[in-house]
Amino acid sequence: VLVLLGSISDKDVAAQMTPVFEEFGVRASFAVCSAHRDHERLMKLLDGAPAAGVKVVIAVAGKAAHLPGVCAAASTLPVIGVPVESGMLGLDALLSIAQMPPGIPVASVGVGAGRNAALLAVQILSIADEGLRSQLADFRVKLRESNRADSEKLNQELAH
Amino acid sequence: VLVLLGSISDKDVAAQMTPVFEEFGVRASFAVCSAHRDHERLMKLLDGAPAAGVKVVIAVAGKAAHLPGVCAAASTLPVIGVPVESGMLGLDALLSIAQMPPGIPVASVGVGAGRNAALLAVQILSIADEGLRSQLADFRVKLRESNRADSEKLNQELAH
Amino acid sequence: VLVLLGSISDKDVAAQMTPVFEEFGVRASFAVCSAHRDHERLMKLLDGAPAAGVKVVIAVAGKAAHLPGVCAAASTLPVIGVPVESGMLGLDALLSIAQMPPGIPVASVGVGAGRNAALLAVQILSIADEGLRSQLADFRVKLRESNRADSEKLNQELAH
Amino acid sequence: VLVLLGSISDKDVAAQMTPVFEEFGVRASFAVCSAHRDHERLMKLLDGAPAAGVKVVIAVAGKAAHLPGVCAAASTLPVIGVPVESGMLGLDALLSIAQMPPGIPVASVGVGAGRNAALLAVQILSIADEGLRSQLADFRVKLRESNRADSEKLNQELAH
Amino acid sequence: VLVLLGSISDKDVAAQMTPVFEEFGVRASFAVCSAHRDHERLMKLLDGAPAAGVKVVIAVAGKAAHLPGVCAAASTLPVIGVPVESGMLGLDALLSIAQMPPGIPVASVGVGAGRNAALLAVQILSIADEGLRSQLADFRVKLRESNRADSEKLNQELAH
Amino acid sequence: VLVLLGSISDKDVAAQMTPVFEEFGVRASFAVCSAHRDHERLMKLLDGAPAAGVKVVIAVAGKAAHLPGVCAAASTLPVIGVPVESGMLGLDALLSIAQMPPGIPVASVGVGAGRNAALLAVQILSIADEGLRSQLADFRVKLRESNRADSEKLNQELAH
Amino acid sequence: VLVLLGSISDKDVAAQMTPVFEEFGVRASFAVCSAHRDHERLMKLLDGAPAAGVKVVIAVAGKAAHLPGVCAAASTLPVIGVPVESGMLGLDALLSIAQMPPGIPVASVGVGAGRNAALLAVQILSIADEGLRSQLADFRVKLRESNRADSEKLNQELAH
Amino acid sequence: VLVLLGSISDKDVAAQMTPVFEEFGVRASFAVCSAHRDHERLMKLLDGAPAAGVKVVIAVAGKAAHLPGVCAAASTLPVIGVPVESGMLGLDALLSIAQMPPGIPVASVGVGAGRNAALLAVQILSIADEGLRSQLADFRVKLRESNRADSEKLNQELAH
Repeated sequence: VLVLLGSISDKDVAAQMTPVFEEFGVRASFAVCSAHRDHERLMKLLDGAPAAGVKVVIAVAGKAAHLPGVCAAASTLPVIGVPVESGMLGLDALLSIAQMPPGIPVASVGVGAGRNAALLAVQILSIADEGLRSQLADFRVKLRESNRADSEKLNQELAH
Repeated sequence: VLVLLGSISDKDVAAQMTPVFEEFGVRASFAVCSAHRDHERLMKLLDGAPAAGVKVVIAVAGKAAHLPGVCAAASTLPVIGVPVESGMLGLDALLSIAQMPPGIPVASVGVGAGRNAALLAVQILSIADEGLRSQLADFRVKLRESNRADSEKLNQELAH
Repeated sequence: VLVLLGSISDKDVAAQMTPVFEEFGVRASFAVCSAHRDHERLMKLLDGAPAAGVKVVIAVAGKAAHLPGVCAAASTLPVIGVPVESGMLGLDALLSIAQMPPGIPVASVGVGAGRNAALLAVQILSIADEGLRSQLADFRVKLRESNRADSEKLNQELAH
Repeated sequence: VLVLLGSISDKDVAAQMTPVFEEFGVRASFAVCSAHRDHERLMKLLDGAPAAGVKVVIAVAGKAAHLPGVCAAASTLPVIGVPVESGMLGLDALLSIAQMPPGIPVASVGVGAGRNAALLAVQILSIADEGLRSQLADFRVKLRESNRADSEKLNQELAH
Repeated sequence: VLVLLGSISDKDVAAQMTPVFEEFGVRASFAVCSAHRDHERLMKLLDGAPAAGVKVVIAVAGKAAHLPGVCAAASTLPVIGVPVESGMLGLDALLSIAQMPPGIPVASVGVGAGRNAALLAVQILSIADEGLRSQLADFRVKLRESNRADSEKLNQELAH
Repeated sequence: VLVLLGSISDKDVAAQMTPVFEEFGVRASFAVCSAHRDHERLMKLLDGAPAAGVKVVIAVAGKAAHLPGVCAAASTLPVIGVPVESGMLGLDALLSIAQMPPGIPVASVGVGAGRNAALLAVQILSIADEGLRSQLADFRVKLRESNRADSEKLNQELAH
Repeated sequence: VLVLLGSISDKDVAAQMTPVFEEFGVRASFAVCSAHRDHERLMKLLDGAPAAGVKVVIAVAGKAAHLPGVCAAASTLPVIGVPVESGMLGLDALLSIAQMPPGIPVASVGVGAGRNAALLAVQILSIADEGLRSQLADFRVKLRESNRADSEKLNQELAH
Repeated sequence: VLVLLGSISDKDVAAQMTPVFEEFGVRASFAVCSAHRDHERLMKLLDGAPAAGVKVVIAVAGKAAHLPGVCAAASTLPVIGVPVESGMLGLDALLSIAQMPPGIPVASVGVGAGRNAALLAVQILSIADEGLRSQLADFRVKLRESNRADSEKLNQELAH
């Protein structure tokens, strides 16, 4: 997985992804590469991506958030876009990412949802990787168990 | 690809997908299966999906648009959500699809973007299918050529 | 009343309800049970609800907020949905809860309005419970009196 | 059930309700009674409602949509509010109905969702009426079957 | 001028008005009187207003913000509505106040704009009071001078 | 009353006002005078307004809708702003009219609410005109009667 | 002036510009060149623009509307962005155009405002062209006169 | 460049501009001059602007944000508007600035984007100043380098 950030200020969203990649044993590389400030390097990163073994691109961006769309235009790899909040609830970024023109889709996740973007990347990779598929099944079991533990906690807290 | 519609009224969005699947030679099956009105059958369809060779699920829904999220919860296959406009610009459906809780991602495309959903599914399948990858490269060339033809047309029209 | 939370992080909204239930002598049980992370247990809770004497379900959820709708689909008990704010003013949750498809209604209250949800549940229960009806009448009198006391306070403060 | 309309122009939303009430054998009366233009008569209707056997009030209103809230303030019966679209997507009415102050809840359904409001009223009545409960279970079966029939239709149409 | 607040929590907005009333020598009385929690007293206040010499009503309210509309329905005095922010940018209150049905207008000012509401009341009173008219002219001169003083300050600060 | 339109395209909103002015016997003059395209003439109209007997200004405008605010800045007469819909639900115009800076209030009515603007002007005039006050009381009675007539109609129609 | 359209479907917005360019004697060339479907040609057009005498770029785009931002990144010429409505009031396009990241500004005009974009381009060119400056002054006079003619018309129509 | 602020409270947005003007050696003067509180002085500033060598006007304003539009109406110089956030995400100001009527364009940048406004002014000036053009090219190189440095930093931080 190649993770691209439009700006270093979106670092926290990227940092949500590393535990997911580690948990699933998925290799990921990270770069800050604005679509507008360094288009040339972006093109190089994307052109070289298939040869570097990249299967999925995640692009994180706020405001006008063109990065995911520019990645999607420059590559036929699936591109996941993560809208980032920066003063307008992330609505500007969400619309800029989801409302792509016909022919060049981007897969948008929720505002600030770095962790979900990483998980979606893992799910995409799993269509060709049985190991990941069973890891995902285990992960869902853990989600369920953590949900049940929270339920216990709530009962105790509201009982106090 | 398994394409699920919350309601038969979203048929036009599904109909955008068939030319894409035909062009790329991707098999797709279609079902109307509301998350709320027929949950049991939905679970059966999703549980049986991997055995039926399904690699990607596309869920089309309007208004509260829970279908994509319910599919994502019931399967670890990647789920693409297509928000449908029905009186509120599709903003209700877009938010219901994109803003999923941590752990269960959905890949949202734009409002009414059935064609882009199908293309995104093809791009996801292409990570394990070299043939699709080169078809996608050809498709992008065609997009470009059609864009250039439009440019010619515009010059002629504005010259009149 | 059965109160369900999509996530433990919505605890504060649930905590608004307990004084209401205590004031009116209404029994309530609480559980954290995500529609997406633990659907199976959710179904069990809802299937067993009528036998457990549950008459009204309150479901609290933020973001895509599918929980109330999933409850409404799985039960014919009236379901009250409480949208929770989480970065988008609660507008995402409000729309996901209110804009249900035909056939499966949810009763939405305001964003973060846990107390009002509990009161609405009491009002619903009161249609078959004369005691609650007269308690509600008393409650309205108290609201009025507290409003009048506030009015006195305001006059004094603005007079200083 | 007492159904109140702020304006005769919301008649179509009220007309969605009559088949539901007929199907479930629930008695309903209808009145146009603006909270602002005829407050006195509104108070009379609501004060007399319990004696007339009314258990649930449905209030339909557009724009500033104060009717449901004014009903909720004047009665302790559960009040269902139906926001109506009139130039602002119904967002104005939805917020005016859902965002009630603490102490006076309204149960909001979706924009223009007259049919769902009627069904919610039936569900509320069913908490004290076993007959309605089993009718509701049958109704859900019919919803499911109609959903399945739609699924057949879709397959045939997209196969052409 | 009669100033009504839906809730004591809107006190700060009311407090903006007192300096204006003092500056212009306009008598004002304040009350907390929710349209929903104490409708009866509200009716008394409004019915008695003309006899008490009230010429303009200002109603301050947040969320569903029905107070200004209910005042406008119960009186033919001009009613100024002040929307208050409470978690939804004040957009809910602004729409609930401005979007009144035909026949019953409310004069909405901006979100949280207590001071402007007081000034608008003074401007309305000035149509029958030449003294206020010339005070308003003086007030505008002061606004202009304070604007010019700010301009000096800015030049100095940006010169540092 | 002086009625100003930013553009001739807002004529329909102005046309709603003439029956109101005729019914109440209030003199009104109309002009198209954009704040941006003919500022000089606007200033002349407003400067001459008091001498011409104008007591209230109504300004109708769409999109950025600066006209009401510019009128309010150039005159101390009360200014009523009418936002007009032109592609963005009138939300742009509503915010441009209501959200005025401190010191220069505008009284905003609802989107496209020309009739309510005229009524609000009449209510403002009535603070110094007992005749208008009793006409307004009669008008409210007519509103109520028309509401009751609508109620009869509804019962008949839904009975068919 | 170089006018770029993301899609031939935005032709009507471009067609608004030609009368302006003709009136002011400004040379303009038009091309359809999607940022995503034909990035390479876009780069060529922009790289060659200064040598071709282009001083201002106008980019017209709907939905995610990345074209203006991509132009602004690829050129230091001033770029005017025109958001186009396509199902979401143009709000998606407006935010995607205006909310550019630091360092790469775009000058956004209103939704669908092709004519204003052309005029803004003329105003920019006029900073180095005295002839255009006096033409602009004449144009403003014509605007004013047309506004006055409309005012006459309104008076006559409302007098009928 | 002449920079105008509607209110001293927008000073921080203006302060973003001075480093840009210093870096590019562009002369700028600053004034606080509300369109509504000191229209006369505003007209003087704008009328005298061309003689004072002003080529571009930047107007900064929040809420109803009429200042940029009033400047655009009073001058044929290009006017850049900067919307400022003040409680409504800046959406009110953005719409008030961008949605100008036909004939009087304003160039809107993003919410709070003082720095981008200054850069846009420089880009406009550069159409008649070769020195600025090459400075802008250098500036873009610096942007790119800072982007690359951020990329290094990210790799190191996420590697820890």
